[in-house]
Amino acid sequence: MPAVPKHRKPIIDAAVTLFRRQGYSKTGLNEIVEASGAPKGSLYYYFPEGKTSIGTAAIEEAGARVVTTVQELADKAASTADLLRSHAKLLAEWMRASRFRDGCPITTVLLEMAPENRPITHAGREAYAARLDIVQNKLVADGFAEPDAQRLAVLCVSALQGALIQARVDQSGTPLRTTADELGILLENRRQSEDG
Amino acid sequence: MPAVPKHRKPIIDAAVTLFRRQGYSKTGLNEIVEASGAPKGSLYYYFPEGKTSIGTAAIEEAGARVVTTVQELADKAASTADLLRSHAKLLAEWMRASRFRDGCPITTVLLEMAPENRPITHAGREAYAARLDIVQNKLVADGFAEPDAQRLAVLCVSALQGALIQARVDQSGTPLRTTADELGILLENRRQSEDG
Repeated sequence: MPAVPKHRKPIIDAAVTLFRRQGYSKTGLNEIVEASGAPKGSLYYYFPEGKTSIGTAAIEEAGARVVTTVQELADKAASTADLLRSHAKLLAEWMRASRFRDGCPITTVLLEMAPENRPITHAGREAYAARLDIVQNKLVADGFAEPDAQRLAVLCVSALQGALIQARVDQSGTPLRTTADELGILLENRRQSEDG
Repeated sequence: MPAVPKHRKPIIDAAVTLFRRQGYSKTGLNEIVEASGAPKGSLYYYFPEGKTSIGTAAIEEAGARVVTTVQELADKAASTADLLRSHAKLLAEWMRASRFRDGCPITTVLLEMAPENRPITHAGREAYAARLDIVQNKLVADGFAEPDAQRLAVLCVSALQGALIQARVDQSGTPLRTTADELGILLENRRQSEDG
């Protein structure tokens, strides 16, 4: 069956969904192509290097989705604290909708494959950097000095990432909401003390 | 070859090491038994239910190690901020020693297997709860009220968990140290503002 361009995106989307749910190693190429609805030949056409290239494309796609989401939330949020809360709320809703089977679309793959698999690790690092930038800009908008904002952004992103794992294990959105609320309070508290 | 009791612990230890490095799905039973130095027959003797029971035992063992480590650090630490810093320092050293191939001994397995696999999810939840308790007690010792301490402990554990993922992807201990330092500053800041 001839490979047609329309199948590339469905293959990547199916890979993102499956990797997020069950990880990279457990997911077979046949499972991906079957879930995508694409003919088997198209997989080897688009991804001649096999699973690593699908993994890399999936991390890039998932990273781009995260960045789009966080940027949209940041644009609407009044402050970083507000951004943390709205992001946690959204993640908790997504988790609940998947009955806590979905988590971060890139974390599991990275924990399985980094740092040995270089293309996947590189894609993961780019996704992190873009997300950190958005949060850092929001912290600067709050009034934090650039170097503080850079360091606090690492904390903010780490905290939500870790809370997503706790939420999955607890099968509850509470760790996400609690983490975002408490970090938001601490950030607001520090801004006030610096202003005061 | 007859199974002897001495092989149970080496099998679990080998499973912890392999799961931490490459995840659960990628690790085969033969690889575990080979790394453990135990005869193949002993694996089926100790773990007649196969991989799930090894996964559960590995999470229990890894969880117990984390709890022992965090309790030792908490006993020595002057405050929660101090505990966060010393834990981050230790994790960064371990990461560096493994050339950033090792991460949290339980996270990868949980992200692959929770919540579908109930025994593994349950073991993960117990490990989290024990770790949260230690941090919560330290926050109470700092002077935080019990309900605040409970919520802040969720943030502290989430932040270090998430930072461990960033450290692995960046192949650097910096995200761990930055996260712990910044969260420590925020916690001290809030204590001072509550005292003042």
